[in-house]
Amino acid sequence: MVSESTVRRVQLAAKALKYRPNPMARGLKTNRTMMIGIVIPDLTNALFPPIIRGAESVLSGSGYISLIADTDNDPERERESFDALRARQVDGLIVASAQREDWALRSADAADMPVVLINRRDDQANLPVVMGDDASGIEQSVRHLIELGHRRIGHLAGPSELSTGVARTRAFRQWMFELGGDSDPDLIVETDTYSVEEGARAGKILLDTAAPTAVIAGNDQLAVGLLDVVKERGMRCPEDLSIVGYNDMPYMDKLSPPLTTVRVPHAEVGAEAARILLRRLEEPDLDPSTVALQVRLQVRGSTASPRTS
Amino acid sequence: MVSESTVRRVQLAAKALKYRPNPMARGLKTNRTMMIGIVIPDLTNALFPPIIRGAESVLSGSGYISLIADTDNDPERERESFDALRARQVDGLIVASAQREDWALRSADAADMPVVLINRRDDQANLPVVMGDDASGIEQSVRHLIELGHRRIGHLAGPSELSTGVARTRAFRQWMFELGGDSDPDLIVETDTYSVEEGARAGKILLDTAAPTAVIAGNDQLAVGLLDVVKERGMRCPEDLSIVGYNDMPYMDKLSPPLTTVRVPHAEVGAEAARILLRRLEEPDLDPSTVALQVRLQVRGSTASPRTS
Repeated sequence: MVSESTVRRVQLAAKALKYRPNPMARGLKTNRTMMIGIVIPDLTNALFPPIIRGAESVLSGSGYISLIADTDNDPERERESFDALRARQVDGLIVASAQREDWALRSADAADMPVVLINRRDDQANLPVVMGDDASGIEQSVRHLIELGHRRIGHLAGPSELSTGVARTRAFRQWMFELGGDSDPDLIVETDTYSVEEGARAGKILLDTAAPTAVIAGNDQLAVGLLDVVKERGMRCPEDLSIVGYNDMPYMDKLSPPLTTVRVPHAEVGAEAARILLRRLEEPDLDPSTVALQVRLQVRGSTASPRTS
Repeated sequence: MVSESTVRRVQLAAKALKYRPNPMARGLKTNRTMMIGIVIPDLTNALFPPIIRGAESVLSGSGYISLIADTDNDPERERESFDALRARQVDGLIVASAQREDWALRSADAADMPVVLINRRDDQANLPVVMGDDASGIEQSVRHLIELGHRRIGHLAGPSELSTGVARTRAFRQWMFELGGDSDPDLIVETDTYSVEEGARAGKILLDTAAPTAVIAGNDQLAVGLLDVVKERGMRCPEDLSIVGYNDMPYMDKLSPPLTTVRVPHAEVGAEAARILLRRLEEPDLDPSTVALQVRLQVRGSTASPRTS
């Protein structure tokens, strides 16, 4: 117990000396390393840097620093990353690389390290998740195309090993049914990865077998790959085919044509995940919750009414 | 000293048990933390993730993990990042955020921590640097435009606080002189930051005061900002103005028109910086060298002959 005047003198001296608390010294007392691991499936996918920046802005405000691991969508590298981060005794993990059957993640969770997931979830692990509202994003996309007069709407589905792929495809089926789109199963083609190359490969199959007038892609990279195929074939977007993406990555508004896509508040996703993780460090028994942040369709030049309508 | 047969038995057993060395345990013996700090000026600038991935591919192969700090181009945050990384006792630093007068960097270097710079250098610190060959990239750009018939070529110069800004502008002046471009000082307008917004602001001034037929931008973001202004004004690229960028960020080939720009081997820049850092950890007295990797102009739709020629 110290007197109020002593407290004031210490505070003034600290200010005069520009004292900043040393996170490592504080960690010694609290038995923490003040490091948080952030595991990303693909750092070169432009949606992850804003998520990391959002998380870091919250973490650094509390004296934490982040160790970033990039798994390159490889489950073996994901396992190695968890091992390496655990060996460095990070205080917790933010994981954006979860597969639906993620054994590495389940063992990390079992090791009693606080974990918060971003975007992608494991089907069984009972962990908090922060994500954009996938069902709402797809609903807005389908509704927009139906209102333009499209019925023959295709879907380039994300990988079925990832929860985002499954959730968006499920929402696509639901809203096509509710809003009166065609129900031909050929209108859905699944991709193996979220990449421009897969968008082109699966996009060719979709165009050849289903002849849609509009396509909702599982993410922007798939949409960009489809757009490449449309141009290669001498078709025009949006006159011959409307295209909708998902995520609104940087520069999607500057493509030719500018891409209609679902904007996800990525920085806020990262920030909210960091807040939840910090709360779990204080209260480990907190029930895990799912936070779905609002998303909004950005209507741009890649969607228009079909020519026949 | 152990016998050869014992060594062989240990190796076989290690293989059978899928033994992987524990970097932290090894660090105890070598007094290392097996962590490398990577300091980035702007993680959301799409050129840095491939640099990080390149560096990590080399570091992880040697059992190192990287701590990534994002300074958001703020010298105060750069200083805090150095403090935080030093407090975690990283074994070395890869720094892509250097200013030409970088006091935080000079004190980190003075603390006897091995440092390798990427792209940007401090004017005085005697440190190894890995970068693309800026002079060659600008030479190729000027030569391309001169061969197309341009003489009135403008330059959106990068910030003069950064070595890349100064080096590219110096090369621009030199090659405009050697290859017979106009020498009007109004043809060079300096920017405050490498951003789309600054490209638009400085681009307006350049168009209004110098009326160039072509512009070489200090990087792709400045080029994208200039392209926005051209479109706003109802001008056409390349018919009314040719534009050349620098870096070849992702999606620059998909803009409207696709951007002619200088491709820098970013993953290789990161990998080479990591190799040099690992070498310096073994031999601290190694002389610092500058490695300038080859760059190549990617000619695309944003450049053409001027209308008057």
